[in-house]
Amino acid sequence: MARRSDSRQRMVAAARQLIRERGYHAMALSDVVERSAAPRGSLYHHFPEGKVQMAAEAADCHAQEQVKEINRIAASSSSAEDLVTAYLDLARDGMVASGYQRGCAVAPLVIEASGQARDLDAVTRRSFSIIIEGMAFQLVVLGVQTAAARELAHAAVAGAEGALVTSRALRSPEPFDAVKAVLVERARSVAVS
Amino acid sequence: MARRSDSRQRMVAAARQLIRERGYHAMALSDVVERSAAPRGSLYHHFPEGKVQMAAEAADCHAQEQVKEINRIAASSSSAEDLVTAYLDLARDGMVASGYQRGCAVAPLVIEASGQARDLDAVTRRSFSIIIEGMAFQLVVLGVQTAAARELAHAAVAGAEGALVTSRALRSPEPFDAVKAVLVERARSVAVS
Repeated sequence: MARRSDSRQRMVAAARQLIRERGYHAMALSDVVERSAAPRGSLYHHFPEGKVQMAAEAADCHAQEQVKEINRIAASSSSAEDLVTAYLDLARDGMVASGYQRGCAVAPLVIEASGQARDLDAVTRRSFSIIIEGMAFQLVVLGVQTAAARELAHAAVAGAEGALVTSRALRSPEPFDAVKAVLVERARSVAVS
Repeated sequence: MARRSDSRQRMVAAARQLIRERGYHAMALSDVVERSAAPRGSLYHHFPEGKVQMAAEAADCHAQEQVKEINRIAASSSSAEDLVTAYLDLARDGMVASGYQRGCAVAPLVIEASGQARDLDAVTRRSFSIIIEGMAFQLVVLGVQTAAARELAHAAVAGAEGALVTSRALRSPEPFDAVKAVLVERARSVAVS
């Protein structure tokens, strides 16, 4: 049982990576099997609904990891400004470290499959909701009022998502730095008011 | 000759719309032919390199239209704040009017095809470059200093791109409004300094 569950987790992790590199349609189940070194026969045992189910679990996993990262960086932030800075730097560093080859695992499901599978629409909505709510919660903990925290969280997540696209196209970290500068100014101003 | 060139333009327009709705991989050439009502035989006459060429031209067309829109709204803006407000409202209104079904025509090529076709990598880089430079130029015209204009333009384009993804997933205009609020504050502060 332990090994089975292990191969299941490895398949979700491999699907997540492949979606980040190539998008949803180009994620072949055979590549997931190969990259995860999981037994081929376990594919439909673990994912009876196939590719849609695997992508949905990969997106859920990605969103949960994002929330964990936000909670981790928030724990060492002493202000909203610190948190938005660390959040944008984390996204920036990941993009640069991947050689501009790895984006978000949720955005491809929105761009390639919106309106095509109810399960995927539900998972992309849920994924962005928990990331934005996780960020807003930590901003409130750091002293920002609820409405301003929600607005800043929406702007931070949209800014990071957009920078993951434009930075990758331009092969430059400049979009992340620009978004960070704009968010930092807002974080300072909402902390003061 | 006039009709041939007309069908070519209609095919590029149809490809652009399909990429915005479904992404790059799911854009079938047969759908482009059907939606553009172009003669099937003209497909490889106008696009001998097939899908990659058609997507590249669709992205170029999209970027050029974006620059035209930026120039148009800049002409009726009396400040950087006016311009970023109109830019985000335009993206917001387009998303809402499409029923949350139509995103950017360039982002899918980044997310689905980065590193896979040199022509597409070149076109996504060029597309975002001209949009960001077009925005930066108009911000300078409106009185913002060069470095601040470039930064604000990067943040505006990344913010709009990200909101096109998160708004579509959430089926809510909230991300656009949040990005706009953050950009407006920055536009005011760089206008003052």
